[in-house]
Amino acid sequence: MLNTRLNLDRIRAARQVIDPSFLDTPLYECDALAGHLGCTVSIKLETANPVRSFKGRGTELVASLLADQGRSAVVCASAGNLGQALAWSGRRRGLDVTVVASRRAPTAKLDRIRALGAELELVEGDFDTAREQAATIARQRGIRLVEDSLDIETCEGAATIGLELATGTPTFDTVLIALGGGAMATGVGHVLKTLLPAVEVICVQPLGAPAMTRSWHERRVITTDSTDTIADGVAGRHPIPAVLDDLLQVADDAVLVQETSIIAGMRMLLEHAGLVVEPSAALGVAAVLEDPDRFAGRHVATILCGSNVDLDAYHRWVRR
Amino acid sequence: MLNTRLNLDRIRAARQVIDPSFLDTPLYECDALAGHLGCTVSIKLETANPVRSFKGRGTELVASLLADQGRSAVVCASAGNLGQALAWSGRRRGLDVTVVASRRAPTAKLDRIRALGAELELVEGDFDTAREQAATIARQRGIRLVEDSLDIETCEGAATIGLELATGTPTFDTVLIALGGGAMATGVGHVLKTLLPAVEVICVQPLGAPAMTRSWHERRVITTDSTDTIADGVAGRHPIPAVLDDLLQVADDAVLVQETSIIAGMRMLLEHAGLVVEPSAALGVAAVLEDPDRFAGRHVATILCGSNVDLDAYHRWVRR
Repeated sequence: MLNTRLNLDRIRAARQVIDPSFLDTPLYECDALAGHLGCTVSIKLETANPVRSFKGRGTELVASLLADQGRSAVVCASAGNLGQALAWSGRRRGLDVTVVASRRAPTAKLDRIRALGAELELVEGDFDTAREQAATIARQRGIRLVEDSLDIETCEGAATIGLELATGTPTFDTVLIALGGGAMATGVGHVLKTLLPAVEVICVQPLGAPAMTRSWHERRVITTDSTDTIADGVAGRHPIPAVLDDLLQVADDAVLVQETSIIAGMRMLLEHAGLVVEPSAALGVAAVLEDPDRFAGRHVATILCGSNVDLDAYHRWVRR
Repeated sequence: MLNTRLNLDRIRAARQVIDPSFLDTPLYECDALAGHLGCTVSIKLETANPVRSFKGRGTELVASLLADQGRSAVVCASAGNLGQALAWSGRRRGLDVTVVASRRAPTAKLDRIRALGAELELVEGDFDTAREQAATIARQRGIRLVEDSLDIETCEGAATIGLELATGTPTFDTVLIALGGGAMATGVGHVLKTLLPAVEVICVQPLGAPAMTRSWHERRVITTDSTDTIADGVAGRHPIPAVLDDLLQVADDAVLVQETSIIAGMRMLLEHAGLVVEPSAALGVAAVLEDPDRFAGRHVATILCGSNVDLDAYHRWVRR
């Protein structure tokens, strides 16, 4: 019996709150990728929705709760995708949304946050600097701070992906999940370990942003001084203890991959699946590329978690 | 009351036969596109499935019927997408699939037809030459010929897209549908005109392959001697009379667009929606680009019908 902060009944109930455009996303076997990866590959596509990432699942829960409570404003720190999603969910419910992000976040993400009507505050420094600033704003203004991965709605929203993976009679052996703050990994992992305990849950993080993966292996929070990865969506330095506790219960492994593998993964998804994804979404394919023997002949599902990418950088990466 | 060859009860029943990976595809408003097109834009995405086009909806019906009849082989002519889809649906049911295609079809499509285990026969000439050769093979071998748009399964399979568009309380005023042989346009049009008669159905075809559009306007079959368009998926010269009869009942208009608009449409879908599509799938956006006043302030839905594209050509087209 799992003893995480998550609850399956609440996760099931979340489907009633989340806008349908974020739910029941495509899940399909991609033959063309399989030939190149040496294993059966199923894609769970989280990019074909109004904010081009899975984060809307969580922000729909957060914004709905705030609206029910009569709150009028909310602030979050974001690497870019949470901010877009919260702006989208908040706008529909009349909430004033403030997003704090690093000035170094992809322009595509920052522009969309503004376009969706949120107030965008940029900080020097990285995502963890933005987290501190968002907390300050929340205190000063007396408004709700949404903390990705810590706030249970962000985890349980993401967990609805797990419900969809567990529908029907899935045949996959392994699910590969991008690991950043841990909302998606703990959410999906919780559902899979509850409903499909035989399915292996493997988290994948860039070697250049390894804090949560190292923490998982050492079973205690390990922080890093800096990050160095193109996978901006998962580049945190300070794992949250409660999230690590959950992750320790639901993940079978956590692996680190190199930048060259992330790029190769993005290129393969474009060439063989016709999909543009951001670097974080290629982590699963990167993990297979780095350890083909481990996955040979198996059926692997990977969640393509976002497609918000600066196209100039993308073209540089995928160009042969 | 419509008097087409299509039947709504059969279309509803088709959902039970079609593999779920082709059904309930994403449908969402794309804010980022709206800003550039001057109208609300909803995307119906038919590319996130095992064959990267909507054609699987129809071939699932065809192949299922043949398997029920104990048939073991089938042949079709294809511009590329039907062949892939029939190969996919046939393989799962133990059918020998032969696909006849033009040697000029995109390499990406031809390679995938072979990879899916079909026998591929290439002809000099274009799609209509391939149609003649497929008919000859069917006669010689005594096997079923699948004729796209003529065979009712291809229309009613595509028509399931219409059921999904009509689910819930859709707010769109207009649906823009790529027009080639007419399976998708008559299928989706039939359902929309039955369930949502107030929604305008506009077919879009390239100026370089205008046979069906001209036929629709003149209310009789007009053929052309040649085609000249990058939208290979819709480049036919010989409209089928029965399909034209149906189209006359379900379409409110049929418009022609220029190649430069198709390319601009593909580029916008990449830049503002993160979606790689083949030229045929950009016809709807192209129609808005060519006549912005017609669509200003309206809510337009467009079906992105396929993403099988040679990447080298694609990059040439979308490069700025």
